Amino acid sequence: MQHSDSGKFPFPAYWKDRDYLVLDQIELPQIVDYIKCSSCEDVAETIRNMNLRGAPLIGAAASAAVALAFKDGFLDKDSFLRVVQLLLETRPTAVNLKNVLDETVELYKRLPTEERSNVFNVFRDFSQEVHRRDIKRNKKMGKLGADHIADLLSGRKINVLTHCNAGALATCGYGTALGVIRALNDQGLIEHVWVDETRPYLQGARLTAFEMCRENIPHKVITDSTAAWLMNRGLVDVVITGADRVSANGDMANKIGTYSLAVNARYHKIPFIGVMPLETFDLSIKTGDQIVIEERSDSELLNFNGKRIAPDGSSGLHLGFDVVPVELVSAIVTEKGVLSEVIDKCSVDGLFNEK
Amino acid sequence: MQHSDSGKFPFPAYWKDRDYLVLDQIELPQIVDYIKCSSCEDVAETIRNMNLRGAPLIGAAASAAVALAFKDGFLDKDSFLRVVQLLLETRPTAVNLKNVLDETVELYKRLPTEERSNVFNVFRDFSQEVHRRDIKRNKKMGKLGADHIADLLSGRKINVLTHCNAGALATCGYGTALGVIRALNDQGLIEHVWVDETRPYLQGARLTAFEMCRENIPHKVITDSTAAWLMNRGLVDVVITGADRVSANGDMANKIGTYSLAVNARYHKIPFIGVMPLETFDLSIKTGDQIVIEERSDSELLNFNGKRIAPDGSSGLHLGFDVVPVELVSAIVTEKGVLSEVIDKCSVDGLFNEK
Repeated sequence: MQHSDSGKFPFPAYWKDRDYLVLDQIELPQIVDYIKCSSCEDVAETIRNMNLRGAPLIGAAASAAVALAFKDGFLDKDSFLRVVQLLLETRPTAVNLKNVLDETVELYKRLPTEERSNVFNVFRDFSQEVHRRDIKRNKKMGKLGADHIADLLSGRKINVLTHCNAGALATCGYGTALGVIRALNDQGLIEHVWVDETRPYLQGARLTAFEMCRENIPHKVITDSTAAWLMNRGLVDVVITGADRVSANGDMANKIGTYSLAVNARYHKIPFIGVMPLETFDLSIKTGDQIVIEERSDSELLNFNGKRIAPDGSSGLHLGFDVVPVELVSAIVTEKGVLSEVIDKCSVDGLFNEK
Repeated sequence: MQHSDSGKFPFPAYWKDRDYLVLDQIELPQIVDYIKCSSCEDVAETIRNMNLRGAPLIGAAASAAVALAFKDGFLDKDSFLRVVQLLLETRPTAVNLKNVLDETVELYKRLPTEERSNVFNVFRDFSQEVHRRDIKRNKKMGKLGADHIADLLSGRKINVLTHCNAGALATCGYGTALGVIRALNDQGLIEHVWVDETRPYLQGARLTAFEMCRENIPHKVITDSTAAWLMNRGLVDVVITGADRVSANGDMANKIGTYSLAVNARYHKIPFIGVMPLETFDLSIKTGDQIVIEERSDSELLNFNGKRIAPDGSSGLHLGFDVVPVELVSAIVTEKGVLSEVIDKCSVDGLFNEK
């Protein structure tokens, strides 16, 4: 993986020799700065501090952290498992984090004794593979999603609306929802992208707009509640978002505000499309009703740049995400294929059975 | 009118002897400070600077400005009409502004010669009457709206959602949409109010939350795109907003984001209720399609507190308002009565014919 700061778009984290470089997303878009992580704890701190974010990227960073734990040599089993536990606790809810760490435990178990002196390289190779395979599946989703949408909208140039950041910056590169937009753009099919600013964290205005700038994709930032009116005016052809978690029936949890878009898309007869790797599905959860909605501190909502917005006497409700029921989803794009028209008539289990 | 800073809620502007005091809404909710206006130009500046806002309040302030123009004695017709023109240009789109100024022109024409020495008092009396009658019609709307909603929802305690600020601070006191909420609260019918923060200006988080605090009405601030999810969860019984302009068929223009609420309210079978004085109706506009949507500078969207949010290479689309078609409106509350169930079957002309 190459340093790509001056490239078409930045990789949000990558290996450079024996260090792991993490793009500091807190400072974006004003400052493009990479944090050099030389130890496991350095990486753990970037995850905790949210210098990086996005479930696939957090998982990949954890693989790098594990490798760096071996930088000074082999660790016995107890020490290794302590490292894994420490990393698991950096962001407890991300499923990708747990999956990648489980893989490192398997790799540790299988490690031949003669490789112990070479353990750092073995785990760094694994970490690089985690990054590569994430980009690979994103490109697959991008292609599948773009072909599906081109087909759906008869290959004309389209206006897309997206929410939050399901982009290169939430993954190891290329992105999920933004991967589909990239693939559409490569096919000359993007007229314009509406970027929801995505309150309260403004991931859209800060991060998605940054990616659109880097790719020279025509776009405009809007307040989240402007989206419905643009649909009314015929200025939106398709809504494309990522997902944080998908239940077995296809209900998808995503950044707060996604549900409102899905309702409005249905009202205006506009396709609403979710894009996520299969890893995002949690088959132990039957429907979206069972997904627990995280309530976050209202200070993130009531303050901005250290200045209080609301009166001291007011409190706020800050929900991390909402759930789009599958009946409002026109298509779900995964790296294994696209679930579409029949989405509300079938279970998504089929996708997994042929895995 | 009394100074009410320590009262149940502040009057946003009022006469004190020979001066007109304007609550500086730019500094709310952190600082409660009144600007003392001793001249016509002082008041004009508060309108231009948006220290005060809201169509009814702007109209009332213009009446005060005209009175202050006579503070040092009578003006000949040309000088007077120049004052009127200057005030008309402070905020060209507000219909109330034009109406009140037309009234002052009539008053000037009818002024008996013997009253010329007393002209300041005559116009100050008129201005005070403008303030009184606005509050009076707001209280009428409050009572009519509250009775309608109590009837609709069988008199149980309810959760209300509102957008922007259609409150005491947008009028001479009491408010339109918030007037209905005040009246419901006086009847013990308010369980809780959800306050949309209302990007990009945050009138909800700043002003509506301020009014709710002053009235001790239980409330929470939310991001605008959270509203739909709260409807899904059964946490919203009714949506109540004001309107900037209503066309002859009942389509209502209001702060951007209102349309999304109306679509979501319909989807979730929740009543959406607009509250506005009859003055807000523009019968020269047949339907909402003819209302021109004001596009404002994107700097108000892309910057906050002097800090840039989005990348320098990004632009934004900042629309001042959107239009809710009458078929999504459950009831329109005016000081003359409530248009409800039959709203999409009748013209609103009836209301005006019996005026």
